[in-house]
Amino acid sequence: MIVGYHAYLELIPEFLVGKEVVSSQMMQEVARCRQALDLAAQGRDVALVSGGDPGIYAMAGLVFELARQRGYPGTIEIVPGLAAINSCAARLGAPLMHDFCAISLSDLLTPMEVIEKRLAAAAQADFVTALYNPKSKRRQSQVFLAQEIFLRHRSPQTPVGIVTAAYRRDERIVIARLDTMAAQEITMRSTVIIGNSQTETWNGLMVTPRGYHQKYQLDAAAE
Amino acid sequence: MIVGYHAYLELIPEFLVGKEVVSSQMMQEVARCRQALDLAAQGRDVALVSGGDPGIYAMAGLVFELARQRGYPGTIEIVPGLAAINSCAARLGAPLMHDFCAISLSDLLTPMEVIEKRLAAAAQADFVTALYNPKSKRRQSQVFLAQEIFLRHRSPQTPVGIVTAAYRRDERIVIARLDTMAAQEITMRSTVIIGNSQTETWNGLMVTPRGYHQKYQLDAAAE
Repeated sequence: MIVGYHAYLELIPEFLVGKEVVSSQMMQEVARCRQALDLAAQGRDVALVSGGDPGIYAMAGLVFELARQRGYPGTIEIVPGLAAINSCAARLGAPLMHDFCAISLSDLLTPMEVIEKRLAAAAQADFVTALYNPKSKRRQSQVFLAQEIFLRHRSPQTPVGIVTAAYRRDERIVIARLDTMAAQEITMRSTVIIGNSQTETWNGLMVTPRGYHQKYQLDAAAE
Repeated sequence: MIVGYHAYLELIPEFLVGKEVVSSQMMQEVARCRQALDLAAQGRDVALVSGGDPGIYAMAGLVFELARQRGYPGTIEIVPGLAAINSCAARLGAPLMHDFCAISLSDLLTPMEVIEKRLAAAAQADFVTALYNPKSKRRQSQVFLAQEIFLRHRSPQTPVGIVTAAYRRDERIVIARLDTMAAQEITMRSTVIIGNSQTETWNGLMVTPRGYHQKYQLDAAAE
């Protein structure tokens, strides 16, 4: 049987045919995981549907935390999927051709000092950086802080891609610059990708070269 | 028509039926991309097949670099896929529930100083860290260096997952610790994931909690 948030289940009608389905409202991740584990403990074969990749900032961890708490003895398999980092990168061109990191700006479960420390580390070590949860209704300021920290280490012209609702009907893609990033329309459904010092724009896309030896032979053999 | 490395094409016979196929040997990435662009410039509809996610350390960037060099006027669409970071995380449990970064240890196109700087930044800012290209026949020492740098900032007991050939017939999964990491069998086909300071092992899996407020209520509403 299939357990999931109703808006995600509506995206995959073909997988629900002939299956027992338990759909739930938003904001009930813990209840949803508990219910999936309850049903599995009763011997049911349960698929818990997550958005994106369940293994990247998503449901997989919660399932294991709850399973551990209750000593769940069954098998749990994580099926990987496309995270925002995969889908947004594809929509922006090729920003993730070199070392990158993902940082969530949500301070709900993480102290702001840790987030700031990571932003500074990512900026100074020239990582391409994906910002998850850049804004919410409650949180509007972190993306300005991120911009400020990155401007200490990276050029104002650094390309920044903002993808909102990737691959959905209301998808929006913006290529901005580091110094105008925070002024863009950014919502809860956006992911922001800040280029590294080598990232360039071409034809409205962001492309990060594969290396730092700028003049590498394009026909050199790969390793 | 379909262009790709023969070993990848052999994995997807169902997509090749009735199509014109150009398969090539390893180590010919640039030639392969050029050929795909040549054929596309002749008006053909060409799919260039890449392993993993073409947008993560893979072919997408090379295609854009070559397209730009020759002023290719056509449309290029990147179709995202599962990168090693997605597939290896799924096989290890849930290591990527908090901020993470990916660092390639290959110094072919990147100076060793940049790689070292990134390792240190990732280690001190407590990122879960995925090491791409941890070893090759030629390069054996970088993974020892990575271990040494991480040990300066993180406990020797930190869980480290090593996945070789994820989801292939010869897949191998090892959960080690930071202080034994470099001594494990690691090959060109391995990805190494180093946990953050909160990552734990459970039932032979690696699980990173979603936050730092250790005692967070498992039934608190998510943001």
